[in-house]
Amino acid sequence: MTQTVTPYHVSGDIDYERLLDDFGADRLPDATQERLGHPLARRDVFYAGRDVERFLDADERSVVTGRGPSGPMHLGHVLPFYFAKHLQDAFDATVYVPLSDDEKYYAKDQTYPETRDYLRDNLRDVLAVGFDPENTRIVVDTDDADVVYPVASAFAGDITHNQMTATYGDPPNVGLAFYPAVQTAHLLLPQLVEGAHATLVPIAVDQDPHVRVSRDVAAKAKYDASKPGALLGKFLPSLDGPGKMSSSEGVAIHLDDDPDAVREKIASHAYTGGRATVAEHREKGGVPEEDVPFQYLQAFFEPDDDRLRDIEAAYRAGELLSGELKELAADRIVEFLRAHQSRKADLGALDAELAPYRLTADERERARSAVGL
Amino acid sequence: MTQTVTPYHVSGDIDYERLLDDFGADRLPDATQERLGHPLARRDVFYAGRDVERFLDADERSVVTGRGPSGPMHLGHVLPFYFAKHLQDAFDATVYVPLSDDEKYYAKDQTYPETRDYLRDNLRDVLAVGFDPENTRIVVDTDDADVVYPVASAFAGDITHNQMTATYGDPPNVGLAFYPAVQTAHLLLPQLVEGAHATLVPIAVDQDPHVRVSRDVAAKAKYDASKPGALLGKFLPSLDGPGKMSSSEGVAIHLDDDPDAVREKIASHAYTGGRATVAEHREKGGVPEEDVPFQYLQAFFEPDDDRLRDIEAAYRAGELLSGELKELAADRIVEFLRAHQSRKADLGALDAELAPYRLTADERERARSAVGL
Repeated sequence: MTQTVTPYHVSGDIDYERLLDDFGADRLPDATQERLGHPLARRDVFYAGRDVERFLDADERSVVTGRGPSGPMHLGHVLPFYFAKHLQDAFDATVYVPLSDDEKYYAKDQTYPETRDYLRDNLRDVLAVGFDPENTRIVVDTDDADVVYPVASAFAGDITHNQMTATYGDPPNVGLAFYPAVQTAHLLLPQLVEGAHATLVPIAVDQDPHVRVSRDVAAKAKYDASKPGALLGKFLPSLDGPGKMSSSEGVAIHLDDDPDAVREKIASHAYTGGRATVAEHREKGGVPEEDVPFQYLQAFFEPDDDRLRDIEAAYRAGELLSGELKELAADRIVEFLRAHQSRKADLGALDAELAPYRLTADERERARSAVGL
Repeated sequence: MTQTVTPYHVSGDIDYERLLDDFGADRLPDATQERLGHPLARRDVFYAGRDVERFLDADERSVVTGRGPSGPMHLGHVLPFYFAKHLQDAFDATVYVPLSDDEKYYAKDQTYPETRDYLRDNLRDVLAVGFDPENTRIVVDTDDADVVYPVASAFAGDITHNQMTATYGDPPNVGLAFYPAVQTAHLLLPQLVEGAHATLVPIAVDQDPHVRVSRDVAAKAKYDASKPGALLGKFLPSLDGPGKMSSSEGVAIHLDDDPDAVREKIASHAYTGGRATVAEHREKGGVPEEDVPFQYLQAFFEPDDDRLRDIEAAYRAGELLSGELKELAADRIVEFLRAHQSRKADLGALDAELAPYRLTADERERARSAVGL
């Protein structure tokens, strides 16, 4: 089987177990998934990791989950933020949200003004998640460059050019060559600002190389920072079949989609585990493992374990038809989006809304001084 | 003849004419050297360039000349600053002085705290030159990262990884891989802040690759910036012979050296064009072309053309002995350093002294917005 998984390319069917061998991460024990206390973990979307128990056992914790603004956000993009909010609520974790507009400018054929438009819209989506501003910091690489660049530059000296090309291949330009240092700044920043503690980075598995680079830098122990832990997730499948939900390929449900659009996309495009005819479905039953609407419910949108089990059983028994399962999933997603969109619509001017989430002058100074500046 | 000249390595005897072929720069016509109006130009230290006439003919001009803080500064480091001050006085040029503490951290085995110490001392030497604060901007890469990084990142997308490795060879770390984008930010910043005009970069010839990279970026014309011109200089020779004056090799006169130290260094170490005995010197005369003290006088320290010609004639005729020429040069250098050191000693607290030279909030915003941020 051919598969390619790097931060800049995902192709082929994905063998998630084999990725663990390739990347050297550990499968999560069931007990750890339970302790995380969220459907995305106990339903096995977050299925592997590094140092997850250390995070759970720590007294002081932070979570880093970011976004590269290259377009409007879809469901696959926002679920990690809702998961981070859960970790904030359940474990009092400080959440850092880096927005890597520089990376998207380097990696995509998009200008900074275009990137800026995506950035502003994405920031409103991040704000709509409802993080606690006291315990959340949103960092925009080009707006917070006074701290991002000095910290990244300190780490850049510890990331060899060979390590970068071995991890990512030859980059197209010198910006992307430098970007591993910026990403390392994102992942170690909470410790620089808040003091040494346990950081967890919940990410899709294709982003693992970034975490490994930052773990290598932390391991050099020149700074008072421990290796960030990684919580590795499977991709939310594209509506029309297996593979990563993507705006550029396949069909994605965007955060701004209205209920009609959501229902239409699911009704018309969702890949199901149903049979060719209703009669055959009644007789043989559906296959939840292959059914994208079921997978959406399982991953996130049906948090109640009993209800999910009932749905699964009814579908497998042929009692629930694919169309009915689609409607069920559509209802839950529409409900989720209504709440999200309502919070987003209630936001005022972006700068004012962002203000309480920005690094304070004192926090900026602590980060600089932690790297000797 | 073997010679290696890159921004990170200079070795071998230097054939300055061959470098022009290698780099593709033009020898300056005598008339252009005269127009520049400074001994360093008309005595042929600044001997070549790109677009120097365009600078001289322009209505609005800027000069960029920087410093990488990796130790205390010596005479070879400071002369370009005094030359830039001359261009400010004579041509009303705005002078930008970038301090690349990031580059030195990337390129040398020195920590940021060490770099910081050098930076502070070097900044005091730059301030001691006596630039007009109204018409001068001093930029420290890690202190002014709020503008340096966003601008560098915009240009980084236009510098391919292949171009970087072809120009500089494989860099040791990802910081130095990115640095050509930072250097381009330095060289185009005046145009981003002040509007399009002619920029001149007076530099030692080994720094020419940096200028060529920034000229390539400017040529892409995505930004309202024209190619910076380059004024290429020969190295001030090391006291003890040909080659670049260097703190790490050979004997250098440092800006903090006291008169006794200067006289001792010149008396004991200066490579002369004198003869083996006084009698032979009287008979055959000295060779000014090989005499380092004479070259110092010629390059900078004896601005009066008639007096320099008299000195040269007397030395060639054997009337002036090497020891006497050494003393002459020592007197002029001591006089220069006294004035410099006196201005340096008169400076108050660094932050307060720097304040009028820093980019204003409005200038920072103009630079960001010029690259679409």
